[in-house]
Formats: sequence, C-alpha cells, structure tokens
Amino acid sequence: MKIVPVILSGGAGTRLWPESRKSFPKPFMAMPDGETLIEKTLARARALADGGPIITVTNQHYHQLTHDAYENAEAHSNRHIFLLEPEARNTAPAITMAAAWASEALGDDVCLVILPSDHLIADVANFRAATDKATELAAAGQLVTYGIKPSRPETGYGYIKAAAPLLSGFAVDSFVEKPDLKTAEGYVASGNYLWNSGMFCFTPGSFLKAADEIATELLAGARACLAATECSDDTITFDRDSFGELQAISVDYAIFERATNVSVVAGDFDWNDVGSWQAISDLAASDAGGSVQDTVLVDSENVYVRNSGRLVALVGVSNLIVVDTPEALLICDRSKTQQVKDVVEKLKERQ
Amino acid sequence: MKIVPVILSGGAGTRLWPESRKSFPKPFMAMPDGETLIEKTLARARALADGGPIITVTNQHYHQLTHDAYENAEAHSNRHIFLLEPEARNTAPAITMAAAWASEALGDDVCLVILPSDHLIADVANFRAATDKATELAAAGQLVTYGIKPSRPETGYGYIKAAAPLLSGFAVDSFVEKPDLKTAEGYVASGNYLWNSGMFCFTPGSFLKAADEIATELLAGARACLAATECSDDTITFDRDSFGELQAISVDYAIFERATNVSVVAGDFDWNDVGSWQAISDLAASDAGGSVQDTVLVDSENVYVRNSGRLVALVGVSNLIVVDTPEALLICDRSKTQQVKDVVEKLKERQ
Repeated sequence: MKIVPVILSGGAGTRLWPESRKSFPKPFMAMPDGETLIEKTLARARALADGGPIITVTNQHYHQLTHDAYENAEAHSNRHIFLLEPEARNTAPAITMAAAWASEALGDDVCLVILPSDHLIADVANFRAATDKATELAAAGQLVTYGIKPSRPETGYGYIKAAAPLLSGFAVDSFVEKPDLKTAEGYVASGNYLWNSGMFCFTPGSFLKAADEIATELLAGARACLAATECSDDTITFDRDSFGELQAISVDYAIFERATNVSVVAGDFDWNDVGSWQAISDLAASDAGGSVQDTVLVDSENVYVRNSGRLVALVGVSNLIVVDTPEALLICDRSKTQQVKDVVEKLKERQ
Repeated sequence: MKIVPVILSGGAGTRLWPESRKSFPKPFMAMPDGETLIEKTLARARALADGGPIITVTNQHYHQLTHDAYENAEAHSNRHIFLLEPEARNTAPAITMAAAWASEALGDDVCLVILPSDHLIADVANFRAATDKATELAAAGQLVTYGIKPSRPETGYGYIKAAAPLLSGFAVDSFVEKPDLKTAEGYVASGNYLWNSGMFCFTPGSFLKAADEIATELLAGARACLAATECSDDTITFDRDSFGELQAISVDYAIFERATNVSVVAGDFDWNDVGSWQAISDLAASDAGGSVQDTVLVDSENVYVRNSGRLVALVGVSNLIVVDTPEALLICDRSKTQQVKDVVEKLKERQ
C-alpha cells in the first residue's frame, strides 16, 4: 500500500527555550551534527514516500521557514502539501484534519505515517522494517502505533503495554503515563513494554471511522473546518474560526487510548525524542557542544555548552547545560531540563 | 602630621573576569550599590587628605579612565598627582616610587597612607580612628600596617600576629600566609591575629630608610627611574626602561616582612577586599544581583546573577555566580571564585 508521510511540526518546543522560540521553533534548530530536525524528518519522509506526495501540517507562521528548509534539502521531486494551522491546537486536530483531507484528496487506499518533526532516528533500515510491519497492520484496518524497544528505564517517556501478537505486531493492552524510575525498571525487565514514540500509521478510512465513533465532535468539527477551507492548491490554510473551535487535545487521548482497533509494532531502532536539552546534549560528542574555541573549562565536568560566538567560561561546576543565544541565556542542571518550559511560562506571566 | 593618601589602582583584577578586563579593570566596576570602587576609594582618600594633595599610582592606560572618574566625583578641590606605570609590576615598585617622589616633592614631614582601590570600608569613622593611631606610630618612625579584627575565620586573607603593645598599636610578631580553616579558627580564637589588609601608613623618610637597608637594589632602581622621569607637572609617567627593570614583587615581601620597625594598628571596622566574585556577591542584597527584571529563577537558590540587559534563566541550580557581559559569560561555583584567574591564564595561553 502506498505510504503518504505526514510531518507534524507545529509545536513551539518550550522546553528548548531559548533557542526554540515562537519565532524560531524547535524543528529549525540545528542539531550537534549541523543538520536541522526538519531536514532530518524530511529525509525520513522521502525515504518512505518513494517519490510520492508528502503532507506537512504546521503553523501558518512557519510555512515560509519550512518551505525554505525543503528547498535547501532539494526535495523538489516530491509533491508537497502544506496544511497550515492558524494556531497550535495539539495533535488531535492536526491529524484529524490531515486524515480528512487525505481521504478526500488521495483516497482511502493509502497509509498515512505520522512523523513528528522532533524525533531523531539514525537507523533508517530498521525504521523502514517497522514501517513495513505497520503498513501490514494498517492495511488490515488497525490504528498502529510505533513502539520502541526500551534501551533503558527512561522516565521521560510514556509506555505502551503490548498484549497478544497480531499479524506482524501486537494488540495493545494499555497506554501508561511517564513512570517513576522503579516502575520504569519493572517495565524494561518485563519485556512487555515499549516506549510510546508518538508515531502512527493508519489508512484515512480507519482513522476517520474510529473518530466518528469515539471523537464524534472532533471529527464533525474537522469536517466543518475543511468545508470552510479553500483547498484548491497544495498550500492550504485552515479556516481560522472553525479550526479554533476544535478541542486542543492530543491524538493519544482523543483516539488511540480509546479506540478498540489499536495495535503496536516493536521498533528496534535508536529513537530520540528531542524534547529537552538533556536529549540534545546526549547527541553531542564532546563536553563543549558548541565551538570548543569559545568555551573555557576550569575544574568543570559533564557540561554541555551551546554558544553562539560569545566566550563562555565555566569554573568549578558540573552537570550543567548552558545555552547562550543573543537574546537570552539558559543555565540548567542536566537532570532538570524538563523544567525549562517553566521559564517560558514565567515569561508569559510577566507580559 | 599631614596625611597624603596614595591610591593604588594599577592591578587588572583577573579574578573578576569577565567584567574586570585589561581594558576595563576592577576599580571601574560598579558595585551592587552602583558606585565604582575607584569612587569609593577616592571618597576615603579625600576624607583623610583634608583638602591636601592625593597621589594615585596607576597604569598609564588607566589614566584617562581614572581622571574621568575623579571629575565625575567632583573632586576638583584636591591637587591630584598621577604617577603612571608603563606596566604592572606589583606593589613594591609602585609604593617605592611614590615614597621617593613624595620625599622629594612634599618632604618627609607627611604621612603616606596607602589605599588599594579594591577595598570596601563602610565605617568611615572607625577607619579614621585607626588612621589616627597609625599616624601616631608613623610619626615615631614606624612602618605601620592596618590590621583588621577578624569577624570570621577567613581563609582567603593573610594574617598579622601582633606582639607587645606599642604606642596606640602593637609591634608585629609575624606575617602569616592564608591559613586553612582549622588554623584560621585558632587565629580568631587566640585574639592575637588580625587580617592583613594591605593598607599601610608611614613617612617617606622611614620607608626609604628601611628600603635602603633591606631592599637596596629596589630603592636604587626606583631612584634611577625617578631621575630618568619627567616630573615637571602633576601627571608623571615613569621612564619605561628603568621602571621595567624594577623587581615585580609585593611590598609585603620586599619591605614589611623584613623590616624591624613594623607595627600594626587594630582596625575595628568592616573591611572587604573585593578580590573575587564571592566577595562582590556578598555585598548584594538579593539573589539576583543584577536586574531582577532580567532574571528568571526556576527551582534555583543561592545564586548571584550580574547581567547586562540580556535575559538570564536558571533552572535547577544552586550556589552559582553568573556574570554576563557583552563579550563573555562566566558561570562559577560560589566556592571556586578564586579560580576565575585560571580562565584568564587559559585565554592568554591560547593567544
């Protein structure tokens, strides 16, 4: 079955402040290897699309940035459909709108593969193998999640508990929230739990059928929004008023945790949700993630410095992440990077 | 006896990098109360000079900055003599040159009071009282050091062990280096030890006589330098070649630890050697030493942030000092601020 990748890149990424800002969000940040997340995600999508169309759902403010990034990646051979959100409303509206549009424009005989643009996957071959399994399940009417075999008792991710084998994957027993360390260790030891990656595979028809049953209001709203939207070319900006009325909820809560035809494939590849500075620093080879030329360490260890031309000196400190941008400076303990979003909250409160 | 203050402000203050830099050294840094060290020192000098002349020994590169600072302080009523060093060579050459110049130009019937420009003294009345005691001793031919009654077992200062009472002070038993904590606690408990403040009081004649006996080469070199120097007005730049030949050594080592007529007065006033960021942060009232407006703290405590307009956010950290300047950023553990000078060393090595 033909695969149509759906790139999701509308989020602001507040945990990666100050580099990820509203005007310059996470997908456009360069990773330690120099490539941006959107470039990496596009490459992943192109490998699946096999020359066919690629859908990108993003905020309308990021259309130009995204378009330019794709041009730079010389991705001209694919047809690109941009579905532009007037505002960020979490993943359920974005994915439901994409499914509704695809069903009308491309038909139901395709597999949509949802690719958040803040994931890193180095092992393309095993990702492709997991996708082959997922499309087999999707073709059988399943709503398929990508689980990742856990390499450590990570407490920053949600988990999926697998049930009985089903075709090339497993039925899903349950979705579980981010666990504490002890619980996570039990999950890893049991062998029945997979990281919930936030990637999905399904046909538009299966998704819309499930939405019709368990998220009736959301689907009706999405259909109304699509009807009110001008869809005559491949750059489509959703009707502002009706899109703004869709419930801002994750697709996990709205659909996957409640549908009965949900299954999971066990991905056997390195996967990194670039959700925090800790995750980015893990990708960096050396202590000084930025220019070593611009960093001086005295009696300091296990630090990650991301600087932008200015000299940064560290004396007698350890386990720190330092992100220095022209507008703002972040100094964060390595184990507290999830709290960076609280800085953005505090700044919002002040204004 | 007439007091002639001698302000010493030629040092670079590498432990206060990055604010104190070669081009903008420590005396010109604003303290948390907004006033610069040189302004504070000038005020202290004027209170002693009683309208008379004030000598300032500084690097020739800092002449304009110093002159401007004095103009701003409306210190026009004093005669200002600037003795300008072509290069920094520690305190013995600076003080010996000042004594030699004063002996010739002002005569020996004055008390020179040596005031380093990186000290803070809030209690002017008790400082004045100590100076009255010091001048009594100086008039009797003594080389007088200002000791400070220790308020805590500080390990960052040297100590002076007092011997028998002598006039309004004490003879000096010995000078001791920076002690470890246990030793410092013993010093404080004994009551015989005073902090060595680095302030001195003597007549030019007494100093030169001692130098002639125990630092013969230094004095001969200083006299040769003064002879080679154009001294016709009050801004005097020492002859470069002969000044450069003077031994770069502290006046403590060269004179005070070796002369036999050294005494100490017991100063009973708050005294702070602004030698490190720890010392400066101690002066700040709140956690955020800079603009609180520009600082965001999340799950952080006991931090001192000195920022210059840019937003600084701290997440999950404690006991840090952050100094953010347009050129460079310092992040330092509060207990390691003495090592900041190692950053400057490393930077020198790179260039």
